[in-house]
Amino acid sequence: MARWQPDAQERLQHAAMTLFLERGYDEVTVAEIADRAGLTRRTYFNYFADKREVLFSGAATFEREIIDAVLAAPAAVSSVDVVMGALGTVGAALTAWGEPVRQRQRVVESATELRERELIKMDALVTALADALHQRGVERLTATLVAQVGVAVYRTAFQQWAESSGPRDLAPIMDDAIRRIRAAVGPAAPLSAR
Amino acid sequence: MARWQPDAQERLQHAAMTLFLERGYDEVTVAEIADRAGLTRRTYFNYFADKREVLFSGAATFEREIIDAVLAAPAAVSSVDVVMGALGTVGAALTAWGEPVRQRQRVVESATELRERELIKMDALVTALADALHQRGVERLTATLVAQVGVAVYRTAFQQWAESSGPRDLAPIMDDAIRRIRAAVGPAAPLSAR
Repeated sequence: MARWQPDAQERLQHAAMTLFLERGYDEVTVAEIADRAGLTRRTYFNYFADKREVLFSGAATFEREIIDAVLAAPAAVSSVDVVMGALGTVGAALTAWGEPVRQRQRVVESATELRERELIKMDALVTALADALHQRGVERLTATLVAQVGVAVYRTAFQQWAESSGPRDLAPIMDDAIRRIRAAVGPAAPLSAR
Repeated sequence: MARWQPDAQERLQHAAMTLFLERGYDEVTVAEIADRAGLTRRTYFNYFADKREVLFSGAATFEREIIDAVLAAPAAVSSVDVVMGALGTVGAALTAWGEPVRQRQRVVESATELRERELIKMDALVTALADALHQRGVERLTATLVAQVGVAVYRTAFQQWAESSGPRDLAPIMDDAIRRIRAAVGPAAPLSAR
């Protein structure tokens, strides 16, 4: 077997998704994924730290693109708008892939250890977003809270998108979600505003 | 060894915390926890499903008390106030225990598999809170978003409390957090309010 495998990572991901959808995540071994991809177990572990990671290889890029968008936003934009804009833009690029993204989401939700990994990645995204907002001059605690609200909106909107079928834009679902939060938490300063 | 162990669960929890603080979570085995408590490994697994669960045995009660408070709140109270009130009351009872709760939190944050378990429990709390709000007549999607904002506020406030020392009330930290979110997300209907 050649040591240079130009598309080994993609082949492993494709093989993993195929097997997970065929037989269920818990029933598939790393050796079987490697075998289906025509590669070895050792090659698998050159690319992914464990069986779960084959489904999360895009997480680092996803996070970096969001953080780059936050840091690139004009200084005058409010913290919530910066976060919503960054999550909306990167989320739109992700959901544009359509059905494969929905399939992956169904696999993630099918196993507790995958849901745990997803939650850890989302928690890391909250921390990275909070750091980026803080770099923009937002007070540390407010940055953490805004990052949490932003990721909550994103996750809820993404979930709705994943449960729907056919082409659907993420942005209006996110806009609707932030409007609902605005309405629920109420005005910032009710007395002085009257 | 007697089969009836009136305080076996508490002894196991105490032994686990002592060992985790002494040697670090990763270095301790279930057999060692049981041994330190003067019990068997089998008894341990009568009480806890795995090594992690010994730190999360209170999670079910914590969740139930919060949900009971949500369902018992007067109908006129807004969804955000209901959630903040329930999390604030139950959180205050938890943090009143002081140092042992801070110690547990430090252990949870010391190991990825414990952070994962904590995130799964918090995610289950979000789902339960959303269901309870929906039972109170709140629209499903708004209920999910309010539950997520509430749990984000609680987690952030609890984190601040855990990092401080000495007696400190959780309620004002949570109030400050929700005020920051209100200010950040802005007015619900800026145009009609002018």
